[in-house]
Amino acid sequence: MGVNSNRVEDFSSHETSIRIPSTNTISPPMEIHSVCLPPKKTTLQKLKHRLSEIFFPDDPLYRFKNQQWCKKLILALQFLFPILQWGPDYNLKLFRSDIISGLTIASLAIPQGISYAKLANLPPIVGLYSSFVPPLIYSILGSSRHLGVGPVSIASLVMGSMLGEAVSYSQDPILYLELAFTATFFAGLFQASLGLLRLGFIIDFLSKATLVGFMAGAAVIVSLQQLKGLLGIVHFTSKMQFIPVMSSVFNQRDEWSWKTVVMGFSFLVFLLTTRQISMRKPKLFWVSAAAPLTSVILSTLIVFCLKSKAHGISIIGHLPKGLNPPSSNMLSFNGPFLAVAIKTGLVTGILSLTEGIAVGRTFAALKNYQVDGNKEMMAIGFMNIAGSCTSCYVTTGSFSRSAVNYNAGAQSAVSNVVMASAVLVTLLFLMPLFYYTPNVILAAIIITAVIGLIDYQAAFRLWKVDKLDFLACSCSFFGVLFISVPLGLAIAVGVSVFKILLHVTRPNTVAMGNIPGTHIYQSLNRYREALRVSSFLILAVESPIYFANSTYLQERILRWIREEEEWIEANNESTLKCIILDMTAVTAIDTSGIDMVCELRKILEKQSLQLVLANPVGSVTEKLHQSKVLESFGLNGLYLTVGEAVADISALWKAQP
Amino acid sequence: MGVNSNRVEDFSSHETSIRIPSTNTISPPMEIHSVCLPPKKTTLQKLKHRLSEIFFPDDPLYRFKNQQWCKKLILALQFLFPILQWGPDYNLKLFRSDIISGLTIASLAIPQGISYAKLANLPPIVGLYSSFVPPLIYSILGSSRHLGVGPVSIASLVMGSMLGEAVSYSQDPILYLELAFTATFFAGLFQASLGLLRLGFIIDFLSKATLVGFMAGAAVIVSLQQLKGLLGIVHFTSKMQFIPVMSSVFNQRDEWSWKTVVMGFSFLVFLLTTRQISMRKPKLFWVSAAAPLTSVILSTLIVFCLKSKAHGISIIGHLPKGLNPPSSNMLSFNGPFLAVAIKTGLVTGILSLTEGIAVGRTFAALKNYQVDGNKEMMAIGFMNIAGSCTSCYVTTGSFSRSAVNYNAGAQSAVSNVVMASAVLVTLLFLMPLFYYTPNVILAAIIITAVIGLIDYQAAFRLWKVDKLDFLACSCSFFGVLFISVPLGLAIAVGVSVFKILLHVTRPNTVAMGNIPGTHIYQSLNRYREALRVSSFLILAVESPIYFANSTYLQERILRWIREEEEWIEANNESTLKCIILDMTAVTAIDTSGIDMVCELRKILEKQSLQLVLANPVGSVTEKLHQSKVLESFGLNGLYLTVGEAVADISALWKAQP
Repeated sequence: MGVNSNRVEDFSSHETSIRIPSTNTISPPMEIHSVCLPPKKTTLQKLKHRLSEIFFPDDPLYRFKNQQWCKKLILALQFLFPILQWGPDYNLKLFRSDIISGLTIASLAIPQGISYAKLANLPPIVGLYSSFVPPLIYSILGSSRHLGVGPVSIASLVMGSMLGEAVSYSQDPILYLELAFTATFFAGLFQASLGLLRLGFIIDFLSKATLVGFMAGAAVIVSLQQLKGLLGIVHFTSKMQFIPVMSSVFNQRDEWSWKTVVMGFSFLVFLLTTRQISMRKPKLFWVSAAAPLTSVILSTLIVFCLKSKAHGISIIGHLPKGLNPPSSNMLSFNGPFLAVAIKTGLVTGILSLTEGIAVGRTFAALKNYQVDGNKEMMAIGFMNIAGSCTSCYVTTGSFSRSAVNYNAGAQSAVSNVVMASAVLVTLLFLMPLFYYTPNVILAAIIITAVIGLIDYQAAFRLWKVDKLDFLACSCSFFGVLFISVPLGLAIAVGVSVFKILLHVTRPNTVAMGNIPGTHIYQSLNRYREALRVSSFLILAVESPIYFANSTYLQERILRWIREEEEWIEANNESTLKCIILDMTAVTAIDTSGIDMVCELRKILEKQSLQLVLANPVGSVTEKLHQSKVLESFGLNGLYLTVGEAVADISALWKAQP
Repeated sequence: MGVNSNRVEDFSSHETSIRIPSTNTISPPMEIHSVCLPPKKTTLQKLKHRLSEIFFPDDPLYRFKNQQWCKKLILALQFLFPILQWGPDYNLKLFRSDIISGLTIASLAIPQGISYAKLANLPPIVGLYSSFVPPLIYSILGSSRHLGVGPVSIASLVMGSMLGEAVSYSQDPILYLELAFTATFFAGLFQASLGLLRLGFIIDFLSKATLVGFMAGAAVIVSLQQLKGLLGIVHFTSKMQFIPVMSSVFNQRDEWSWKTVVMGFSFLVFLLTTRQISMRKPKLFWVSAAAPLTSVILSTLIVFCLKSKAHGISIIGHLPKGLNPPSSNMLSFNGPFLAVAIKTGLVTGILSLTEGIAVGRTFAALKNYQVDGNKEMMAIGFMNIAGSCTSCYVTTGSFSRSAVNYNAGAQSAVSNVVMASAVLVTLLFLMPLFYYTPNVILAAIIITAVIGLIDYQAAFRLWKVDKLDFLACSCSFFGVLFISVPLGLAIAVGVSVFKILLHVTRPNTVAMGNIPGTHIYQSLNRYREALRVSSFLILAVESPIYFANSTYLQERILRWIREEEEWIEANNESTLKCIILDMTAVTAIDTSGIDMVCELRKILEKQSLQLVLANPVGSVTEKLHQSKVLESFGLNGLYLTVGEAVADISALWKAQP
């Protein structure tokens, strides 16, 4: 075997060839170890491994290993319906906790449902419908114990803004509702497919930095839009950008109604105060949880009592009683607006998925259990598909609801069932009570809810730790504020991906030295005790070598050599004879990279310099071997560690001066 | 300092804290070294460093350091006009070599110029114009000594195909010429700007794999298109896709002319034979270099002699005598076709740049001199801008011409001047001689030229070494063949970028073991002699930790732990107590990654497992420090090497059992 002569070892002929060179001054005598190739695999095996890492990194079938078929069946059913997993152990004590937490989130869910539906330009009743069916579905399919399900502000905002550009609810309410339910259907379909196809990693591309900026931008826009309700303006833009919204506010000053303003800001101050109290003392979570319902009741009473004098304040008006009507006949899969519905479905789907999964994971981590991302996606997806057939719009796990749920001591998804039952009672009997509820109170509730999304501390932390993350964050913030929601999001994802590419295109190279008395080689710039090894230049390449950086790396390495030689000349040191590339962090190489290594070796050979590779990882060794590049490196071109390379080569120089 | 307690060292308080733990069984007693932070830099310094690595990786100003101002001026002039660098040393001996090589490439350039212009749907004379002005400009500005400048097949093809979709030359020749010159101007502007703004790395994103597929696809399309000339078909599609071209060939069978076919295929066989001869024996380069001109002369003579009998064979016809007419008045920067011109300019510009730079670098490497990529871009760009004002279309360094130039012994850019002079003579006096040259011979010359672009060996090598590179290659091949040239190229670039992202999204994690008697830790799977260290799980993460992979990595690490614990249970080994993450290959981390590390530590803590980081690189240590995560790791959470971590922690366990 030609390769064995390069001390590359193959498992087919496994005999460790250890050579002991003569002692040298740099480090104590040491054994020289061979570099092994990774165990041989066929292309098919490699493909299988690669695909299983992409799609099944969590090895979801490990529970089924070595089980009998009836046990397997039970496990499979439990896998599909987590309720079968925790259901049998459910008891009265847990139920008591769940009733308390369920009622608590219901008191939050009812005003939130009405408010968020308004945010999506939908009739308020749709918000309540959406707090009834989806939580029931989730309690069967979902694997999180603390997720509070319902409509959320971001998805509502995005749906309102994207559909509003195509159709106006006031002009054609039926078409708008059709589009909303169709978009919800596509959101669910998209979410469930991501889960089924195990493509959950796609949502990872919405990095935390992007989301911080996006949420803050959306929160600012939503809050500004609520000025319509807070100031009592009747004619308001339907656009979602900063400039049209602000000009609407100030151009319609004659429509401002002082009664509305007074009522709105009073309740806003009340809601914000309760929010502050609960944030300072988490035990008082119920203060902020109960505040929205209290405000709704109080303000409704006020308007009801003063109804003769309060006709300047706009009210919700008549809401139909009764359960969710079926809406599957309203899904339309043709017509000129199909593209809008699909696009809205995709964007709201991915956003609500991101929120739902993140919230689920957060609370699971607090209670130390696992939430399976792909399974959650299916649960949320099916919940939205079912929702689109029962007059619901996009729902997901909401952060505010889940936090209240968790703090109120929820033990299982039964709290969602309790909440749904409370909503059921409301839908059946209490709807007329909302007749006099003023719209201004909904605006105040929305502002209080979204203001928590502006996480300036996180933004500051991004600035402190990672400037490029901060850039992605700012891009999504200003993109959402001044351009549009989907475009802002796209720009931020673009910046995040660009950051990855930039790191690959311009990787770090580090000159290393020996820490005296050890075999450790570390950055000369970072470790003052590290010493140059004379006649050697040891460079660590900190990135895979790809087409995108092979030219740069070649130029950069040649520049290192030029600078080293200039330094040697200036300091009268012994001439440079050998370049060692520490390949530990070169985790992959492609054909352009292989050509680069090959060419670099030839260029250095012409300058009478030896090129040595130290510690190439498995896949890199394999590719260098397959492309016959390793052979050209000869006997002293490949070592397991930098230390062994230095020891062996300098021993060789002593032997043949 | 709170951080010092974690053995993270800062340069501001530089005292190496070395602790010597008690001996243990795994490795001989060792000193424990601190992990240092990199030297402190302000944000501005970091930004400056980052920008200089992006835009000035080759440190182009190093020649100017420590020089007097008049020397600096000379160096600057030499930098801008490389002719000033080699001009003074030029002598008669070099000139003799250059005359020979110049005349040799002229004999190739004249038929090629005429043929490639036809490929771009331009009048043949434009091809000759393009072999006159641009080589002269390049000889002043270019830094390669062997580049043979002129029109090339790929750029001609792309220009013909992209402009042909908007305007037909036969229907509106003036508009087509205007568009061609305008596109050339934009190509030059784009190339020169890339060079000036030092954005040369953009062309690196056309990986070699992509180019292999692209070239082969383009060569197949071009060859098939030449069937028009070879078969003598008059009505032929102007489209560039495989299917319309093939259907044109077979639907117009009645137009096939046997005289043309016989002549065409005879000369094609002749040209391919001479090509084979030169490829087998590089010394006989002149055989293939002279063959095109010989064929042109021979075929012209044949047609001239048999002109009464050969009226089935289409001929070039009248060509105007005289030098390049100015064409700056034909550049149009408005009108409905401006977008097409800009797009064509960008695509042909980037393609011709890629070819020119690659060719320049190849021959520079053979003669061991450097070609500065950004400077070459400026030279090629200015050459095209000047060309667009003097009736030339896109030109660059051509591979075939440069190879002949190199083999004929060219010593400097003077050979380009000699070639231009020969073209000048042709333009002034010899144009009428081409009147009877049959078009079929041009088709044969084009096929012979492009057939060399089909590098099936390279494709096979890609398949063998890197399957994903092969996928990118196939995508660009089939994309160009069946969809369109720019789209095929875009798909291939997309696949290449996707490959980088995939590597980041699903990085490798490797379980490591100790090689007995050493401090070396290597992959257990790859090195059979490596042994598990009991109670430890040592994992190497082979990628930066980013938002795109932090969720995956967390799940994957937890799965490693689960599998390890199952294995321990099955084998009755001592329980797992400590997880060491070898961070050597984690070359960067972002805020999502930091959160992941933090959360992982908390999860493991709940399972009574210790998490330890070994050898984080400079920037990662810095970010972990800035975000206060290092503090949470405490005294035994950070080590310089895996070996020291194992030694220190197991010593600690012995001390406190």
